[in-house]
Amino acid sequence: MEFDGVHDMAEPEIEALTFDVFGTVVDWRNGIAKEAENILAAEGHHVDGQAFALAWRARYQPSMEEVRARRRPFVRLDVLHRENLLDVFREFEIDGVSDDTTDQLNRAWHRLPAWPDVTKGLARLKQRFIIAPLSNGNVSLMVNLAKHEGLGWDVILGAEIAEAYKPEPEAYKRAAALLDLHPSRCLMVAAHNSDLVAAAATGMKTAFVPRIDEYGAHQKADFAAEHDFDIIADDFEDLAHKLGV
Amino acid sequence: MEFDGVHDMAEPEIEALTFDVFGTVVDWRNGIAKEAENILAAEGHHVDGQAFALAWRARYQPSMEEVRARRRPFVRLDVLHRENLLDVFREFEIDGVSDDTTDQLNRAWHRLPAWPDVTKGLARLKQRFIIAPLSNGNVSLMVNLAKHEGLGWDVILGAEIAEAYKPEPEAYKRAAALLDLHPSRCLMVAAHNSDLVAAAATGMKTAFVPRIDEYGAHQKADFAAEHDFDIIADDFEDLAHKLGV
Repeated sequence: MEFDGVHDMAEPEIEALTFDVFGTVVDWRNGIAKEAENILAAEGHHVDGQAFALAWRARYQPSMEEVRARRRPFVRLDVLHRENLLDVFREFEIDGVSDDTTDQLNRAWHRLPAWPDVTKGLARLKQRFIIAPLSNGNVSLMVNLAKHEGLGWDVILGAEIAEAYKPEPEAYKRAAALLDLHPSRCLMVAAHNSDLVAAAATGMKTAFVPRIDEYGAHQKADFAAEHDFDIIADDFEDLAHKLGV
Repeated sequence: MEFDGVHDMAEPEIEALTFDVFGTVVDWRNGIAKEAENILAAEGHHVDGQAFALAWRARYQPSMEEVRARRRPFVRLDVLHRENLLDVFREFEIDGVSDDTTDQLNRAWHRLPAWPDVTKGLARLKQRFIIAPLSNGNVSLMVNLAKHEGLGWDVILGAEIAEAYKPEPEAYKRAAALLDLHPSRCLMVAAHNSDLVAAAATGMKTAFVPRIDEYGAHQKADFAAEHDFDIIADDFEDLAHKLGV
C-alpha cells in the first residue's frame, strides 16, 4: 500500500516519525540470548539463551501492567527488567549470581542489535522527518542503544518522559505535545498491531513494519497488519521509499 | 585550567555533557536581529534589529520568573516568547502585525545560528560523551535548532521535560535522573556563571565557555568565570581538547 498522504493537500503533512523499539528497531531475542549465555557462563551457569530471553520477555507486559493499573507508581523499565530477571533466575534455578553480574546482564537491554535495515533506513528518514523512539524503554536505555547502533534519533520520547507505559494514551499524547505537533502529523511505526491501534486512537498516523522473526519459532502474532494502517512497509528502507525519501 | 577528573580515579568519570543553549550554543542576538528586520520589513515595518533583539531578550527572565514563583503554571518557552513579542511590538509602536507573521517571527528562535566552533566541537564530544541540551527552550525548539545547525544531540533534556525553568534545581536534577547518572557524572557547559553555580549546587560538574559577544556592546556580565568551575575552555573545540577527545 503506497502512502499518498504526504503529497495530498487534504491530508496533514507528516512531520515526525515515532518508533516502537523492542522488536521493531532491535532484535531483543537474539541479543539477550547471546548476552545471557555469555555473562552467566562466566559465573559457571549454563543456560539456553533463547529460552532465557523468552522467559524474561514474558514478564515484560505483566510488570508494566502493575504500573498501568496504578497498583504501583511509575518506575523506569530498567527497574522492572531487573525485578523480572531475578524471577527468571528462580525459574531457571540459577542461584548466587552477584549483584554486579545481575546489573551487567540487566544492561544487555542497552546493547541490543538493530535489525539489518534499521541504521540505513533511519538515516534516510532523518533527512526529511523528525525521528524519535516512542518506546516503553527508559531514556538512558534508549540513549545507550542509539550510541551502540548509530541510531540518529533527533529526540528521545516514550514512557519515562510521559510516566505512562504504552498502550496508555498519555504515552503517545505526551510525545506529540513535546513535538508541538497535532498527533495527525506524527506517524507511529511499529511491528505490533496493538501499538498502532493505540496510537491511531490518539489521532496519530500509523505504519506497520512486520518483524516475523521477533519471537523465532515462538512467534504467535503480528505476522501481518490486521487493521487499515496508513502505511505497510517491508522494512525501514521500504518505509523511506514509501514516504518518498 | 586542565581538567584531570576524567583520568583521576578519585573523581567520578564524566559520562554526559549538558549544555546551556541560548548564548552558549547559538548567537540569539544576531539571529533574532536579522530575522526581525527581514520579517517585519515585509509588512512595511522598519526596525533596528539589534535593539529589537535586546528588547525581546530583556523580557526573557521576568517571564520565566512568573512560572518559577508559581504565579502561573508551567508553559513552554514558545508561549512566553510570543507574549513577550507582543509587548515588544507595543514598545516599538509596531501595529497591525498579522498572527501569521507574529508566529513566523516567534519561530526565529528555532532557526538561530550556532557559534562557529559549535558543530565541530559537539561532533568531537559526541564520540566520547552523551551530549544533550539543558536549556529553558522547549523540546520542539531544541529539535528544530538541531536540525537547522546539525547539532547531534543524543537526547533533548531541559525545562519542558522537567516542567521547571533553570536555575530551579529540578531542571538539572531531572536531566541527571533521566540519564540515570549521579549528577557528578554530568558536566554542565554554559557561558553564564549563574547557570553553572545552580548546576554545581545540584552536584553537577561545571565548564565555563565565555561568549563575550553574546550581548555585543551591551554585554555587562559573564566576560569570565567568576567561580571555581571544573573546566574553563575558550570554545567547544578547546573543551573537547581539555576533555581529552
